[in-house]
Amino acid sequence: MVFYFYNMKNETTIFGIRAIIEAINSGKEIDKIFIQKGLKGELFQELEYAIRKAKINVSYVPIEKLNRLSKGNHQGAVAQISPVEFYEIENLVLSTIESGKTPLFLLLDQLSDVRNFGAILRTAECTGVSGVIIQKKGGAPVSGDTIKTSAGAVFKIPICKVDHIKDAVFYMQASGIKVIAATEKAQNLIYDISLNTPCAIIMGSEGRGINPSVLKVVDERAKLPILGDIQSLNVSVACGAFLYEAVRQRS
Amino acid sequence: MVFYFYNMKNETTIFGIRAIIEAINSGKEIDKIFIQKGLKGELFQELEYAIRKAKINVSYVPIEKLNRLSKGNHQGAVAQISPVEFYEIENLVLSTIESGKTPLFLLLDQLSDVRNFGAILRTAECTGVSGVIIQKKGGAPVSGDTIKTSAGAVFKIPICKVDHIKDAVFYMQASGIKVIAATEKAQNLIYDISLNTPCAIIMGSEGRGINPSVLKVVDERAKLPILGDIQSLNVSVACGAFLYEAVRQRS
Repeated sequence: MVFYFYNMKNETTIFGIRAIIEAINSGKEIDKIFIQKGLKGELFQELEYAIRKAKINVSYVPIEKLNRLSKGNHQGAVAQISPVEFYEIENLVLSTIESGKTPLFLLLDQLSDVRNFGAILRTAECTGVSGVIIQKKGGAPVSGDTIKTSAGAVFKIPICKVDHIKDAVFYMQASGIKVIAATEKAQNLIYDISLNTPCAIIMGSEGRGINPSVLKVVDERAKLPILGDIQSLNVSVACGAFLYEAVRQRS
Repeated sequence: MVFYFYNMKNETTIFGIRAIIEAINSGKEIDKIFIQKGLKGELFQELEYAIRKAKINVSYVPIEKLNRLSKGNHQGAVAQISPVEFYEIENLVLSTIESGKTPLFLLLDQLSDVRNFGAILRTAECTGVSGVIIQKKGGAPVSGDTIKTSAGAVFKIPICKVDHIKDAVFYMQASGIKVIAATEKAQNLIYDISLNTPCAIIMGSEGRGINPSVLKVVDERAKLPILGDIQSLNVSVACGAFLYEAVRQRS
């Protein structure tokens, strides 16, 4: 059995197909798996099955990329282990409600830029957000760069991973938490929405905003006023303005 | 006379000592000049004199860096021309007051990160800021990366360069504009400060915050509430929260 760990840019890496299958099956938090293009064979099929079942991010890459990621015999597969432990959404919501604090959650719908993700985690920690919920696939990973741009917030604020952001929306609503989409496709300004009741704010990705299927199921939509010609803000800046409006209303 | 222009990463470059001296003397907006380490001679002294007089950013670099920056015979000096025209602070303040809008200026005290600078320009444009004032030396340049991260705001919002941010503070105050420092060294929260009168907000650099000599001369200091353990926000996020509080109070 091959099972090596080593550190690179604050990330832990596992390599070797069998080692990665074992890591997945033992429930290790894996951020992303890199697989050599054109890889075939029975063991490889077993790996692909485990990846699909656990809904892990995969990239198919040339062998040179794998050689750079791993010093040992990678057998065509390298996995990056997440440096943080993720929370279960059920436990997080329950413990937040039990704490007596008015819940304020942040849902990120496939944000792709690591620096934006890091800056948002930092802001969330500073504004007393109860937890950040991200999707298992399609978003920026919790990588060394995320840790750095988050100024360490990644270790301070609970983060949950869900299969789909919609699952989190439904779970929040079932727990009595109002879900508000931050979107320019809104009638109301954020200042006209009450944020001092239990609520969750969804921010969309840099390019596409919030997924239309998610937008359909939210309780409210809110936007920031835009006074200039450029019709979009950086997502971490917009998120900061939303979260600080919640802080203001609650103070 | 050598006088070549060419484009690289949205920047225009001038090279050759005589060409750069002429560009400075003709009042061209130069962002930064790269000079070969150890360069000597009369013409070079003339260049250094012109640079000092015009207070332009200089870096002394190995010849390899200059070879990369310029395709022609650079003679040991390469200048990067700013892609934008800068405003005079006097004209900007006057035209803002005359427009009947309640002035809202943003002063940046030697912000060093280009992505933060770009995101802030974008936010300033979106929040109807009348103009952004930066220092001639010590801050992030208006480069191709600034243009990109600003989403083009760099061409939409007036930008002024002053010798020292303090000069801008005094000029604002003399024009009846209240100057507010965004600093954690404040008693008041931003929510307790009136922002619907003519005002200017100063944001400090990522590492050192606002220069103490600038802090001494401002009219007010204000901070954002910090509810978590990490005691600092990303500067572009903090700036967004300040500017949107001004928008809220004015709406």
